Amino acid sequence: MTLDFEIKNKDSNSLAREGLIDIDGKKIDTPIFMPVGTQATVKALRPEDLKACGASIILANTYHLYLRPGSELIANAGGLHDFMNWDRLILTDSGGFQVFSLSDLNEIKEEGVYFQSHLDGSKHFISPEKSIQIQKDLGADIIMAFDECAPYPADKNYVKESLERTLRWAERCKEEMVGVKDQQLFGIVQGGTYPELRKISARETIKLGFPGYAIGGLSVGEETELMHKMLEVTVPELPESKPRYLMGVGTPEDLIEGVRRGIDMFDCVMPTRIARHGSIYTSQGRITIRNASFSEDFSSPDPECNCYVCRNYSKAYIRHLLNRNEILGVILTSYHNIFFLLDLMAKIRKSINGDYFSDFADKFYSNYLD
Amino acid sequence: MTLDFEIKNKDSNSLAREGLIDIDGKKIDTPIFMPVGTQATVKALRPEDLKACGASIILANTYHLYLRPGSELIANAGGLHDFMNWDRLILTDSGGFQVFSLSDLNEIKEEGVYFQSHLDGSKHFISPEKSIQIQKDLGADIIMAFDECAPYPADKNYVKESLERTLRWAERCKEEMVGVKDQQLFGIVQGGTYPELRKISARETIKLGFPGYAIGGLSVGEETELMHKMLEVTVPELPESKPRYLMGVGTPEDLIEGVRRGIDMFDCVMPTRIARHGSIYTSQGRITIRNASFSEDFSSPDPECNCYVCRNYSKAYIRHLLNRNEILGVILTSYHNIFFLLDLMAKIRKSINGDYFSDFADKFYSNYLD
Repeated sequence: MTLDFEIKNKDSNSLAREGLIDIDGKKIDTPIFMPVGTQATVKALRPEDLKACGASIILANTYHLYLRPGSELIANAGGLHDFMNWDRLILTDSGGFQVFSLSDLNEIKEEGVYFQSHLDGSKHFISPEKSIQIQKDLGADIIMAFDECAPYPADKNYVKESLERTLRWAERCKEEMVGVKDQQLFGIVQGGTYPELRKISARETIKLGFPGYAIGGLSVGEETELMHKMLEVTVPELPESKPRYLMGVGTPEDLIEGVRRGIDMFDCVMPTRIARHGSIYTSQGRITIRNASFSEDFSSPDPECNCYVCRNYSKAYIRHLLNRNEILGVILTSYHNIFFLLDLMAKIRKSINGDYFSDFADKFYSNYLD
Repeated sequence: MTLDFEIKNKDSNSLAREGLIDIDGKKIDTPIFMPVGTQATVKALRPEDLKACGASIILANTYHLYLRPGSELIANAGGLHDFMNWDRLILTDSGGFQVFSLSDLNEIKEEGVYFQSHLDGSKHFISPEKSIQIQKDLGADIIMAFDECAPYPADKNYVKESLERTLRWAERCKEEMVGVKDQQLFGIVQGGTYPELRKISARETIKLGFPGYAIGGLSVGEETELMHKMLEVTVPELPESKPRYLMGVGTPEDLIEGVRRGIDMFDCVMPTRIARHGSIYTSQGRITIRNASFSEDFSSPDPECNCYVCRNYSKAYIRHLLNRNEILGVILTSYHNIFFLLDLMAKIRKSINGDYFSDFADKFYSNYLD
C-alpha cells in the first residue's frame, strides 16, 4: 500500500494547488479539511453525515483513545475503522500534542514523555516507539511521528533543543515502521516562531524521508501574521511532490490563507466545538444562533447553503433546541459547520482548477464578516 | 377533515384489535406507539430517523411548548409541523398532566389552573379554553381535552370531584372547538383506581362525544395489576368504533398488556429517557450497555434487531461513547429504543392479523427477561 500524490492544478497567483491523494484506492481531493473525531466519533455526527458532507478522511486522537477505551481494545475490535464504522480514510495524530497540552505533570526525557492522565491521574509513558505501536493498534491509514509541540511563546534555545529531539524521535518512529505496509507515516516540522529553526526542522525532517509532511506547533496562541510568516518560510522548504498538512488549523480564513501558502490538508476541532456553543459559520460570517435576535427568524441558518440542515430547519427552531439543551440542536449546528468547511474546500479546489482562487478568496472575504 | 377508524382484525382470545386511523389521508396502523417529542423534538433523533423507525405519529407537550418557545411563536412558524420539520401526524396533550406534575404551587379552580412555571417561576393560568387555544396555535392533528390527572393514591371523594370537574372541562373544550375542522379533539377518561369512578367517567365522557378516547391517570405509581384492572373495567365502556389511547404508557410489557386489553394507541418518554442513561431494550430483555461486561463485546446491541444501530455498531463502541459522554452514544441508544418499540408494535399488529397474538406475547415474554 502506497500513498500517491498527484498535483492536478496550480494557481497562477499563489502557492495554492489542487491535488489527489490516493492510498490504496481510497482518495482525497486536496486541499482538504479533515473533521476531528477525537474519541472515535466526530462529535454529534454519524459516519453517514460525514459522507453526506463530503468527508473523505477524518482524524482521531491517539492520546484519548490510548487512555479510553484503550488501543488494545480497538485492535481487538479490528481497528478504528471497524470500531467506529468508518470505511473511508483515517489519520491519527501521535498523541504528542495532547500529552503536552492536556496531561498533568509531564516530564520530557530523551527516551520519551512521562505523564499523568488528565482523566484519572494514572501514570503513563509514551515514547516514539510506543506512539507508533499504539497507532498500529488503532490502524489509521495515515499516522504521525511523535513530536514535541513546544509551547508559545518559548525561548529560542528551548525550541532548538526541542526540534532536535523531535528529529531524533522522528528517526526512531521511522525505524519502528520498518515492515509496516498498510500505514503511511508523516513527519512533522516544528521550530516554533523562529524562521531559521523552521527551515532547519524542515530540511532535516525531509532528509529522513516521509510520504507527507505536517507543520506542527502553529495556531497555538501566536498572531495570525506570525503563523502566515512561518508558513511562508516553511512551505518552500518542503518537497513539491508530497502532501503538506497544517495541523490543528482552522477557521474559514485560516483554511483560505493556508491554501494560498501551499497547504493541502487541515484539521481542527473548532467547527464542532463552536457548534456545541451555538455558533455556526455562514456565507455572511459566523453567527451565534442562540442570540435573541434569531428567536423568530424562520429563515434557514445560511440562505446560501444547501446542506441538510439549511434545507430543513430554521434559525428559530435551532435556537429553541439549543436553548432547551436538546441534543438535536447540537446535531444540526455540528452538521452544518462540518458541511460548511468541507463545502468551502470543494469551492477552493474548484477555484484552483479554474485558476480564480484569489478572486474566490476576495469574494469570500467581502461577504464573510467575522 | 375527519378521523376515520377502521377495525381490520380482531384477536380471538383477547380484546386486541388491528386497525387503521385515517386523518385526511395521513394514516396510522394501530395498535401504535407514539414517540414523545416533548419540546418539538424526539430527544436526540431527527425526523428522518423517526420515519426510518416507522413512526406515523409523534406526540408533543403543550405545557412545555407554551412556556418555551411559546405557542404564538410556533403559530408564526406555521405550526408545529413546519417548526420541527415533521410532515406526518402529531398529537399534543392538553398540558394538564405537566401543570399538575411539574409546575410549582398550582391552584385548581373551576375556571382552570393557576400555576408557576417550573423554569422561571413566572405565573400562568390555563383553562380548558386556553388549552385548546394553545393547541390550535400548535396545530397538531389530534389534540386532547384539558383534564385533571388526580394524584395516586388519592381519596375517593377527591377523585370523584376531580373527574366531575374534568367532565365539565371536557364540555368547555368541545365548545371551544366549534368550527375547527383540521384538528381532532379526544376526550380523556379519569377516575383514579376506583372501578366505578372509571365507569362513570367513561360513560359521561362518551356522552359528550369524541372521535377518540384516552385513558389518563394510569401508570402514575400504582401496581401493574391495578393498572390492568382499570383497563379491564374501562375499555368495555368505550365504543368499539373509536380509537382508545392509553396515555403515558409504557414498557414493552405494558404495550403488550395494553393491546391485550383493547388499547390502540400508546405514548411514553421511557425509550428515549432510558437511552440517555445507557439502557436499551433487546429481544432478551433490557440491558444497561454502560456495564463493564460489555466493554469488549463487539456484537450488535440486539442480535435479533435489524435497525440502523444494530446493523452498524457494537455494544463495546456504544459503551465507549456513553462512558465518554459522546452525543453519538445517546443518538444510537435512542434510535434503537424507538425502533424496538415501533417494531414491537408492527409485530403485534401482524400477530393480530394472523390471529396468534397470545402466542406472540408468550414467546416475547419467554425471551424477554426484565
